[in-house]
Amino acid sequence: MRAKTILLLACAALLAACNSVPRISPEAELTSPDGTMKMTFGMDHKGTPYYWLECDGKDVLRPSRLGFEMRGAVKATEITYDGAQPGKEDAQPPFSLSEDFDITGFETDSFDETWEPVWGEESQIRNHYNELLVHLSKDGGDRLLDIRFRLFDDGLGFRYEFPAGQKESYLCIKEELTEFAMADDAVCWWIPGDYDTQEYEYTECRISEIGQHFRDKMRGNSSQTLFSHSGIQTSVQMHMQGGLWVNIHEAALVDFPCMHLDADCSNFTFRAWLTPDAQGYKGNVQTPAVSPWRTVQVARSAEEQLASRLVLNLNEPCAIEDVSWIHPVKYMGVWWEMIAGASSWNYTDDFQSVKLGVTDYSATKPNGRHGANNQKVRDYIDFAAANGFDAVLVEGWNIGWEDWANCDKDYVFDFLTPYPDFDIEALNNYAHSKGIRLVMHHETSSSPRNYERHLEAAYSLMNRYGYDAVKSGYVGDILPQGMYHYNQWMVNHYLYCITEAARHHIMVNAHEAVRPTGLCRTWPNLIGNESAMGTEYQVFGGITPGHTAILPFTRLNGGPMDYTPGIFEPNLKEWCGNDSWVNSTICGQLALYVTMYSPLQMAADTPEHYSRFPDAFQFIKDVAVDWQESRYLLADPMHYLVIARKAKDDGQWFCGGVTDGEKRTFSIPLNFLEEGRFEATVYTDAPDAHFRNNPQAYNINKVEVSAADSIEVTMAPGGGFAISFKAL
Amino acid sequence: MRAKTILLLACAALLAACNSVPRISPEAELTSPDGTMKMTFGMDHKGTPYYWLECDGKDVLRPSRLGFEMRGAVKATEITYDGAQPGKEDAQPPFSLSEDFDITGFETDSFDETWEPVWGEESQIRNHYNELLVHLSKDGGDRLLDIRFRLFDDGLGFRYEFPAGQKESYLCIKEELTEFAMADDAVCWWIPGDYDTQEYEYTECRISEIGQHFRDKMRGNSSQTLFSHSGIQTSVQMHMQGGLWVNIHEAALVDFPCMHLDADCSNFTFRAWLTPDAQGYKGNVQTPAVSPWRTVQVARSAEEQLASRLVLNLNEPCAIEDVSWIHPVKYMGVWWEMIAGASSWNYTDDFQSVKLGVTDYSATKPNGRHGANNQKVRDYIDFAAANGFDAVLVEGWNIGWEDWANCDKDYVFDFLTPYPDFDIEALNNYAHSKGIRLVMHHETSSSPRNYERHLEAAYSLMNRYGYDAVKSGYVGDILPQGMYHYNQWMVNHYLYCITEAARHHIMVNAHEAVRPTGLCRTWPNLIGNESAMGTEYQVFGGITPGHTAILPFTRLNGGPMDYTPGIFEPNLKEWCGNDSWVNSTICGQLALYVTMYSPLQMAADTPEHYSRFPDAFQFIKDVAVDWQESRYLLADPMHYLVIARKAKDDGQWFCGGVTDGEKRTFSIPLNFLEEGRFEATVYTDAPDAHFRNNPQAYNINKVEVSAADSIEVTMAPGGGFAISFKAL
Repeated sequence: MRAKTILLLACAALLAACNSVPRISPEAELTSPDGTMKMTFGMDHKGTPYYWLECDGKDVLRPSRLGFEMRGAVKATEITYDGAQPGKEDAQPPFSLSEDFDITGFETDSFDETWEPVWGEESQIRNHYNELLVHLSKDGGDRLLDIRFRLFDDGLGFRYEFPAGQKESYLCIKEELTEFAMADDAVCWWIPGDYDTQEYEYTECRISEIGQHFRDKMRGNSSQTLFSHSGIQTSVQMHMQGGLWVNIHEAALVDFPCMHLDADCSNFTFRAWLTPDAQGYKGNVQTPAVSPWRTVQVARSAEEQLASRLVLNLNEPCAIEDVSWIHPVKYMGVWWEMIAGASSWNYTDDFQSVKLGVTDYSATKPNGRHGANNQKVRDYIDFAAANGFDAVLVEGWNIGWEDWANCDKDYVFDFLTPYPDFDIEALNNYAHSKGIRLVMHHETSSSPRNYERHLEAAYSLMNRYGYDAVKSGYVGDILPQGMYHYNQWMVNHYLYCITEAARHHIMVNAHEAVRPTGLCRTWPNLIGNESAMGTEYQVFGGITPGHTAILPFTRLNGGPMDYTPGIFEPNLKEWCGNDSWVNSTICGQLALYVTMYSPLQMAADTPEHYSRFPDAFQFIKDVAVDWQESRYLLADPMHYLVIARKAKDDGQWFCGGVTDGEKRTFSIPLNFLEEGRFEATVYTDAPDAHFRNNPQAYNINKVEVSAADSIEVTMAPGGGFAISFKAL
Repeated sequence: MRAKTILLLACAALLAACNSVPRISPEAELTSPDGTMKMTFGMDHKGTPYYWLECDGKDVLRPSRLGFEMRGAVKATEITYDGAQPGKEDAQPPFSLSEDFDITGFETDSFDETWEPVWGEESQIRNHYNELLVHLSKDGGDRLLDIRFRLFDDGLGFRYEFPAGQKESYLCIKEELTEFAMADDAVCWWIPGDYDTQEYEYTECRISEIGQHFRDKMRGNSSQTLFSHSGIQTSVQMHMQGGLWVNIHEAALVDFPCMHLDADCSNFTFRAWLTPDAQGYKGNVQTPAVSPWRTVQVARSAEEQLASRLVLNLNEPCAIEDVSWIHPVKYMGVWWEMIAGASSWNYTDDFQSVKLGVTDYSATKPNGRHGANNQKVRDYIDFAAANGFDAVLVEGWNIGWEDWANCDKDYVFDFLTPYPDFDIEALNNYAHSKGIRLVMHHETSSSPRNYERHLEAAYSLMNRYGYDAVKSGYVGDILPQGMYHYNQWMVNHYLYCITEAARHHIMVNAHEAVRPTGLCRTWPNLIGNESAMGTEYQVFGGITPGHTAILPFTRLNGGPMDYTPGIFEPNLKEWCGNDSWVNSTICGQLALYVTMYSPLQMAADTPEHYSRFPDAFQFIKDVAVDWQESRYLLADPMHYLVIARKAKDDGQWFCGGVTDGEKRTFSIPLNFLEEGRFEATVYTDAPDAHFRNNPQAYNINKVEVSAADSIEVTMAPGGGFAISFKAL
């Protein structure tokens, strides 16, 4: 499988000089297995490493700097007599891991495997690349840095490796200097860089315009730390003027700060911007260590970009030996009515604040609106069981919700003690008797220490009562203050929870945690994340149509999202007094079960609302949640998206499409179907449907089709469509 | 027991105006049970609360401000276009809890109880005080603050109480404004204020001279964060020009930052200086909440100060129901030879750095100097058992020591896995067969998260093998960076470990943890702390004689210290090549078992060294570690100290004395003895003994004495004496 197929150029003179940056000498070249991608590694006269990238002979990245600025060794502050603030000073000056390097060697490799994910958009994934490992040395070998490049047919991944054997075993990163110098002023789809939230709407503009559009989609969040007026998050999708589609993200974010990008708008150049610790330093590594992979996916079409599995391929293989307990989940939940305001997480309104172990809930007056009560949970279980669901999430089951958010309160929850009206044993028994599992809920209130203190007991409680999945949350500022949601300390925490959960055979769906980077390949019990603006924002003022037409390019590039689709009643005011409006048609909601891939799919609305539209609800009941194959039929980021998928278990095809605020008509060729005749059940917006003034108008037609046919669908503004196929 | 005995003055006019600060009106007065102490509470015209204190009609504290500056409510940073750093801004301006107050009420109480500590310097402690609770309100009741004063015959304690029912349930402290305005330019004994270490030598100077002496005893530490050139630590001992002895400290430090003091040298006024979080804020409270007690002990002599139990009395009663498993411990340890350099904590020198779970110790080459090896531990067990000890500490038993300190490394230890040459099961079995317990060692390397992640498993391991005590350590900078050893987050951590240990029936001796504040009353499984410069500094360049003559006034005011005395071989160079010298005579070391009270006493030197001086070692074998009664016979801080104590179990008396660099002769009246005749075994420095050039010269005399007698002892420079009494 492995062969040395890469052209190595030890002598710079052998290559034509790079025109745009003449002082950078190409030193080695790497081509992708099919020869369409070419990455060049070079050095300038100062010993600074660079790389650049071409696809089909077109420039993707101009020479882009590599390396780090490192912190010097630290000493305690000398006492000063001028009232200086306390702190630690660097005893040694910072040093560069980005200049004065000599190349001490190259290694090449190639790799081709096909692996089978535990769950995913397809049952088999090919991982095929050529590799170049560059060894760099400076200061007579005191400082070492390796850079490992993997070039796939769909893009480039590279990571830094901090080898053992250098002067210091422990290094502190002051700044990552990695650049992504785009070859032209590409259109990009991005959200503002933030150390604490990913919950923004996307902006579509050219790189050169990021600065002027920075405030366009600004929105408050319970924890929010912007760092630059040109800072953006990954994964960022781009469409180059030269026609190529490019996406920058990272893969395998393990024990390292999450990477943002700061844009030099005039040069179309992004620079890595790591999330800092409380002192402003970026990360600590112990050699030998590796950074996450920095990824540059390249595609010839938007549809091709959606099919790229480069991020997953750069993650390590599955680390869990027995995966029999990991399974896709279609679930309902006592949640939407709380988010919307019809019921509450908290049990009582009697207290301005509560203290666990002090507040006596048994003696207090219930507020009468507590969602997680025995009767309501039983009703949800009944409905979920009757409609073939796997599970029911219940939020607000445990004591502490009376003052849980953003209070700088360490001990908010114990994750163990139910409210008086939630009989944990009886409800789990009842659920199990109906073939339903309850989904646990652990809101940490961003107090990770408190969560870790209770983790073993909390997971053990889940094991005792038969929960096998947990939704966790990190709302509000991280405690202790000064920490951020995406710095190394917290990245370490999220993975700790996933690995501890795996020991307990528990699947994790973490909200407000760091954006996924393909770690679900290694830890497939990470079946979901939020890490973007999800359906809940429909009750926080609404989401602009088109949002779900960009997420598969960006947020979903690293792993599935618990988007919580399926809202059938967009008029919140009518049933719960909320002033917001769900900006989607019913068919637009149905489409999401196909377009927003996740092994964990929620039908987020209430049983009552579904009961009013049983024919449309049928699609949610029918649609699969795990896939053999996926076809990305039509895509324009933030505008529209049509995807077809084949169920892993029985091979049944489903198709879905969403649009932005524009009405769109497409003719969908059905050439993905196998031979034979199929009954297609087509759920489309009614001709006069509209997300704002006629969202519940839809038609359901059954037609007989074959692979040679096309189906014409029209999506209303803010709408979509869904089709299920049944072999005849 | 309770009676309202306090004179309350609702009308300021009833009292003579306070001369020195005429605009402060006295509002209420509190006297101690015996009437010798008088505390006055007053307000100025701005509604700022003050208190002042007199003893025997002499001013102790002039009017001193009370209250806090609070942080306003917080919002996320608005994005700025000028490159401003990220962070959180205060949405609301800071507000004062120190002005514009109205007094809304006074409550008074008195209390008298005698309680029995699980272990201590005496078997019964009287807790007798009069109390004044002041209710303050501002902004129409939106802001409330209560101040509770307890006046004892030996001083004042007061704490702030943040009542429920005010506008905000969660408050963030920006600054504590509490003042201690000394009535004159007292001599004080102090160490520099530092957020990360308490390991300094003391300076003796007037308050007005603190600034100019600030660097006198400066010394590096593995973690050190000074904050002001006039900042000092508590407990600080003072001797006023008016003759009174005054000590400022705090009691019951629970879920609050540790208090330092910043001196206004020209006004002889100390102001509270709390240890901050990573953002510079001081602490967070959820109402109802209380601060620790601020304590002002007052005595008419240095000896009386040593007898004060005010700090213990201000702590809550014992929280552990069954204390049968808590017991005093006299122990030896595989430790001094490592500190001195004769053997090592680490097992191998093969690696520049190690990774737990990656480094294969079984395949590595031992360095041949590893202290915690099976044979050596057995030798220590044999020696300890033969000489009547209870326990043997073994440091360096667990993997990870090759690169443990100050590496910004999170996962340094697992607290579970022994080195290949330490058979944990066999060694514990062997120890138990000889009546010895091993003492566990948990160096956390200041990575509290890693420690907490392993705490349950680590304590369970101790239970499994029969360990009932752990020495823990916090060397190096706290992780995550930005945290400090003494801020609220870490104070919470230390107590968490103590309470978790109590669940496991484990006694804790925490080194480098926050200085004790009497919490051992509530949690008597906290049998020791370091929290000051201990014997280890004798191998780090030596300790100035006199250090142990100040510690009982200051460091020991809050609880016992694991000082690790008993060094018989001061010449380190000879046996382990260390250039340092132990600045003490053998008799000076023996004295510490009496003068440095601790329920946990180590004989820190090696079996070999003790074997060379069996007659002197006899005192260490004989001396008790728990007491019925203690008598403070002679004391001059940093100069000399003579204490007699009566063993709790058999009533046997012991006496010990230490001196500084001066030779001193005292005649010790034996009037503490009961009726009858006693054989006194007197261990004294030889006439020509000297800590530097003749430290091992001593005489042992047996004399028959009675309570009517005196014994004359001469202490060599850096020396001391010890006497054991046996009833005839």
